[in-house]
Amino acid sequence: MAKDLARKYILEVTPYIAGKPIEETKRQLGLKEVIKLASNENPLGVSPKAVAAMKRIICAANRYPDSSCFYLKKKLARYYGLKPENFIIGNGSDELIDIVVKTFAEKDQTVLTADTTFLEYEIIARVNGCKVVTAPLKYFKYDLEALKRKIDKQTKVIFIANPNNPTGTYVTERELEEFIELLPCNVLLVLDEAYDTFIDVNDFPKSLKYIKKDNIILLKTFSKAYGLAGLRIGYAIADPQTTSCMEKVRQPFNVNLLAQAAAQAALDDKKFLNRTKKLVLEGKDYLYDNLKKMGLAYVPSVANFILVDVARPGLDLFKDMLRLGVIVRDMKQYGLNNFIRVTIGTKKENERFIRVLKKVLRKEQK
Amino acid sequence: MAKDLARKYILEVTPYIAGKPIEETKRQLGLKEVIKLASNENPLGVSPKAVAAMKRIICAANRYPDSSCFYLKKKLARYYGLKPENFIIGNGSDELIDIVVKTFAEKDQTVLTADTTFLEYEIIARVNGCKVVTAPLKYFKYDLEALKRKIDKQTKVIFIANPNNPTGTYVTERELEEFIELLPCNVLLVLDEAYDTFIDVNDFPKSLKYIKKDNIILLKTFSKAYGLAGLRIGYAIADPQTTSCMEKVRQPFNVNLLAQAAAQAALDDKKFLNRTKKLVLEGKDYLYDNLKKMGLAYVPSVANFILVDVARPGLDLFKDMLRLGVIVRDMKQYGLNNFIRVTIGTKKENERFIRVLKKVLRKEQK
Repeated sequence: MAKDLARKYILEVTPYIAGKPIEETKRQLGLKEVIKLASNENPLGVSPKAVAAMKRIICAANRYPDSSCFYLKKKLARYYGLKPENFIIGNGSDELIDIVVKTFAEKDQTVLTADTTFLEYEIIARVNGCKVVTAPLKYFKYDLEALKRKIDKQTKVIFIANPNNPTGTYVTERELEEFIELLPCNVLLVLDEAYDTFIDVNDFPKSLKYIKKDNIILLKTFSKAYGLAGLRIGYAIADPQTTSCMEKVRQPFNVNLLAQAAAQAALDDKKFLNRTKKLVLEGKDYLYDNLKKMGLAYVPSVANFILVDVARPGLDLFKDMLRLGVIVRDMKQYGLNNFIRVTIGTKKENERFIRVLKKVLRKEQK
Repeated sequence: MAKDLARKYILEVTPYIAGKPIEETKRQLGLKEVIKLASNENPLGVSPKAVAAMKRIICAANRYPDSSCFYLKKKLARYYGLKPENFIIGNGSDELIDIVVKTFAEKDQTVLTADTTFLEYEIIARVNGCKVVTAPLKYFKYDLEALKRKIDKQTKVIFIANPNNPTGTYVTERELEEFIELLPCNVLLVLDEAYDTFIDVNDFPKSLKYIKKDNIILLKTFSKAYGLAGLRIGYAIADPQTTSCMEKVRQPFNVNLLAQAAAQAALDDKKFLNRTKKLVLEGKDYLYDNLKKMGLAYVPSVANFILVDVARPGLDLFKDMLRLGVIVRDMKQYGLNNFIRVTIGTKKENERFIRVLKKVLRKEQK
């Protein structure tokens, strides 16, 4: 049996359940008009500049990509006022989570995070043979006090998603500052800021200043606001000594050629980014208003998604909405049985989401 | 120091040195006309069908890729007469090497391979904390007898590149058959057949039959004959029980959207594949002839590259040729100090390679 040959702890890992793809839903349910508000993607599509950049380079895809991501790092360095060596690029920030764990955490050391947060921290830690300790959220928010109390001698890496996925909450600059002051210098802190582009508050941490410390790593992605989820590209920002350790673990051709070109172009496309932000803020107001009118509670979000308390099994609601061509995310895997998470879409998509949600809830009352 | 925080064995890993990219060479040396015969890429570019498939889907790259690679697996299953569950898709076959090691080899167990073969087997094994044992080649060929003698209780995974890179030699069906008969059933055997498309001999193993055993895994890639190196896509074929263990380790969105579309189209493009094979066979004859005329020894190859004994430091030759705009691969990292490896290119590229090689050697004699 192949199972007997595998590492024991791998077989115990519960795999990540991805948001349902549009194609798959059409195929399985025989539907024609399907919208997806399940994976916090950019509803406006890909930046036109990124599309153009990819089209220019597509015929050179017989060549291996640049292993060093030379031009992208240079561009990111200019963008942030840092050096190219402050960056390491990954096949999505998922891969960078794996690289951090592999670089710094020995088997049986502990990875610490919240109990309701991005699931890949735990999955990737377990796959690498690490133990996982979690602290509960407090009012849907990372509780840094509780997290601090869980740090012990075995702790090697801490993941904080800020803003948090799937709750949309954030830890403030002051909270984080206090946490970092007491962080042991042999513990790595990863601040996953996948959704930071959507922030519209003033007390969000200006985290760039922390990377002077060699045990703090920021994660960023091109999958959300930048609209490149399908291409798989994210990056980490850290001290050059820290990134150089991580470079030892990175595979030479981990970032494909088109993703490198698209990311450079997307970084330049301020117009597209601003349109995206505006759409998300307007859509959020619309969804808040309508959820309130329907008497549904939700967690106020600084990201491009909303966690909604639907006061009934979210999985059933998810299935009912799916049958009507609206894909949302059920939260059972996160232990939030009575919740769904909805990505803020285009105006039309948001309206359809509310319409279908009403229809499904109405049917239930009959 | 970040170094003190990292896993010890990671810092000792010598990173893979990639073939020099064309862009980088132009940039660093101020050259305009550069050809690359260093990474065994397809000199004809990308299959036109793959280009068209990518262009059709490029604007949907804001969506995450299909985590299950549903359509590609279905197509591969039909192509090979197997089931979709016989396949697992990777971000290049590099990633699949990592997935195999992570799935099956515990820290401190041994990965066994040849001492002169694709370097990533050793690098990836070390990054994952495994020990590496190697057996020497015999006449530039995997010596399966020597490999067998190295198997002990600590051995968990064996990598055989067939054809071998960088030598271009292969183990025959009979040799492999004997080896597999005596393979302990708790040891995984990975047959990396990245270059099998170029085979023009009759005694190459028909390896598909071996995957009935749950400890044998085939690796294939779209990076070479299929011309998709820049997109990063490869796959493993194995028993469904074996792939299902590996699926536990695979990240949900490891294979980008464009690579999935391009691979499906490339698999259908028989015309492009046949043109590629023809070009490689003709180019090989041309290069053999000219190397002979120049009195240079080479290792006869069943792949799309030739290992050439240049009877002087290959690194110097590499540098001299680079200055004249021809990128080949120096073999120092493989311990073959007096060799270069040259990829078979287009007719024009092969002619330029010979011209520049002659020029460099002539200059040396003065």
